[in-house]
Amino acid sequence: MRPKIYLFGDSITEESFGDGGWGASLANHFSRSVDVVLRGYSGYNTRWAVKVLDKVFPAVEGGDGGDPLAVTVFFGANDACLPDRCSAFQHVPLEEYNHNLISIVSFLKKQWPRTQILLITPPPIDEDGRLRYPYTENPSGQPERTNEAAGAYAKTCVAVARECEIPAVDLWTKMQQFPDWEKACLRDGLHLTQNGNKIVFEEVITKLRDEGLSLEILPVDLPLLTDIDPNDPLKAFQK
Amino acid sequence: MRPKIYLFGDSITEESFGDGGWGASLANHFSRSVDVVLRGYSGYNTRWAVKVLDKVFPAVEGGDGGDPLAVTVFFGANDACLPDRCSAFQHVPLEEYNHNLISIVSFLKKQWPRTQILLITPPPIDEDGRLRYPYTENPSGQPERTNEAAGAYAKTCVAVARECEIPAVDLWTKMQQFPDWEKACLRDGLHLTQNGNKIVFEEVITKLRDEGLSLEILPVDLPLLTDIDPNDPLKAFQK
Repeated sequence: MRPKIYLFGDSITEESFGDGGWGASLANHFSRSVDVVLRGYSGYNTRWAVKVLDKVFPAVEGGDGGDPLAVTVFFGANDACLPDRCSAFQHVPLEEYNHNLISIVSFLKKQWPRTQILLITPPPIDEDGRLRYPYTENPSGQPERTNEAAGAYAKTCVAVARECEIPAVDLWTKMQQFPDWEKACLRDGLHLTQNGNKIVFEEVITKLRDEGLSLEILPVDLPLLTDIDPNDPLKAFQK
Repeated sequence: MRPKIYLFGDSITEESFGDGGWGASLANHFSRSVDVVLRGYSGYNTRWAVKVLDKVFPAVEGGDGGDPLAVTVFFGANDACLPDRCSAFQHVPLEEYNHNLISIVSFLKKQWPRTQILLITPPPIDEDGRLRYPYTENPSGQPERTNEAAGAYAKTCVAVARECEIPAVDLWTKMQQFPDWEKACLRDGLHLTQNGNKIVFEEVITKLRDEGLSLEILPVDLPLLTDIDPNDPLKAFQK
């Protein structure tokens, strides 16, 4: 059976199989070697994620192909909602975010000791975009997320990765290196455009490759057309 | 655990998680209810598919979430390569295609009696496109696939579905109802453009819905954001 890569996160993960989405791109990239499994939960923060860990990743006894290759953990965009603005119910204090991320990593390491865990920081925030495309009534005229707050959560995420000795994609920093990132990479100040999705995809496959998980190394499921002899095609299927 | 929908087929399945691809669209559509699992094998015909069935769909004892919800079986585009042209090694005679499709359906029905099987016919062929974008050396000036041949395989596929009492998407017929289908739906005379992918996606979800497999009916994995009380979010996770 093929190995799996789980994508665990919030709406930026849940919608990652949309047009040009980073999840679909991963599934396409690994189309003959890995099953990319979507576990995105729109609106979720790490406090809620911790509550559902054992449902999202049940301890399956045998049969399910063993430990997954990798799990991406991509939370923080909702934790970073400001506590005094219109999405306050999703806010999680920075210290608790830190603690929750460690709990998620610990759970996964305990469940699957050989699985590569990859943290992804929240993206930067385009505050203008957040005001133009409100998710809820927001008469305050103040965005419910700021780039500065997202940056603090991103730094914490990177620090957790260092502490847990696992890799992280510092998306907050990386994305802001792109010209006009506010509109080029973010569709509504938070969710990704095709450009933004491409950045996540490229960063994820780069980090996976750094950890030894790449197309060159992973076994291919069944003979490729190029390995089938046109003069005796069935030979390839006799093994 | 979430139920699964397997996509079993040739390159039109293998590349279905590319930009705007029908597989990615299915995964996005069912993002909180179904795992869409890619089992596409570029270049494969039904003769080769029959040889690998038990590897593609191993009889897993327990643990793997039980019978899948559905399997799409999407072969015929390679079987329909003409026997006297440059891709002859992929050709499978019509009668054998008929027999092989029945074998695939029988295997799946035996393995998973409750799983919905959905046949998809090969798409129509734009012969001009096939000459403009050859996959191999083709000095003959004759396309290796014709629309007429693809149509014969499509008719056989529909007949097998009727005989086996399972639904079929008659893509060959459906696609030709679209204006300028040759270029609008097919990128190289065979593989799908975003328009072509959209047709497959719409047809598949329609057929699945006809069989009772739709978002309205399938259980959602974990509470939706809209079902979480902003005044007491954790209540939703106490069940």
